[in-house]
Amino acid sequence: MSNTKVLPLIAPESDAVAPCCPPLTERPFTAEEAETAARMFKALGDPVRLRLFSAVASHEGGEACVCDISDVGVSQPTVSHHLKKLKEAGLLTSERRGTWVYYRVEPSVLAAMGRLLTVAPAAT
Amino acid sequence: MSNTKVLPLIAPESDAVAPCCPPLTERPFTAEEAETAARMFKALGDPVRLRLFSAVASHEGGEACVCDISDVGVSQPTVSHHLKKLKEAGLLTSERRGTWVYYRVEPSVLAAMGRLLTVAPAAT
Repeated sequence: MSNTKVLPLIAPESDAVAPCCPPLTERPFTAEEAETAARMFKALGDPVRLRLFSAVASHEGGEACVCDISDVGVSQPTVSHHLKKLKEAGLLTSERRGTWVYYRVEPSVLAAMGRLLTVAPAAT
Repeated sequence: MSNTKVLPLIAPESDAVAPCCPPLTERPFTAEEAETAARMFKALGDPVRLRLFSAVASHEGGEACVCDISDVGVSQPTVSHHLKKLKEAGLLTSERRGTWVYYRVEPSVLAAMGRLLTVAPAAT
């Protein structure tokens, strides 16, 4: 019922990522907010993708290329495919340097997702 | 490669929900950790389910029955189906009172998910 536009949470390659949504416990999400937030949760809703994401997120310097990630038990093309999906969801950014594409976690998006899960004080 | 057992993050109807995993930025997830965490992210990876979840989470008293949620634009059986899925993922607990089943957010699970998304200080 609101006329306000949904701020894009997903802005690949951008430093300025606006949080889309209030905490899930604050008020019912609008359809637009739910679309945006669900896309990010869905990107992390696959075990292999989640392992790759944590591999990048925890890698030295906060970034990694496919060449750094080889112990997840899937082929390099599969790794590339999943990293691309995470990038499309706005969770990773990428930069080509020579032969390799380096992926980096978008901290503001991660923080925005964490904010969604903030638990409000129990209403009794 | 670890012999340690994965702590169950999902324990429906239980008050004692152990967090399964460290923050995603801390170290690469094991396959077991990723399985557990991905299941929860996946449950929130659907726009309708996410709206229903926020409707329950933000409802007066922190709980709601299907009878309280009617403005998401889907039928009551669909609402029930999605609430059941959220319960199976450990995100909601339920209790029957008379005619209706009341759903409540499991705060410890929400907190554990929020912890996964904690952003570590930037490593440079």
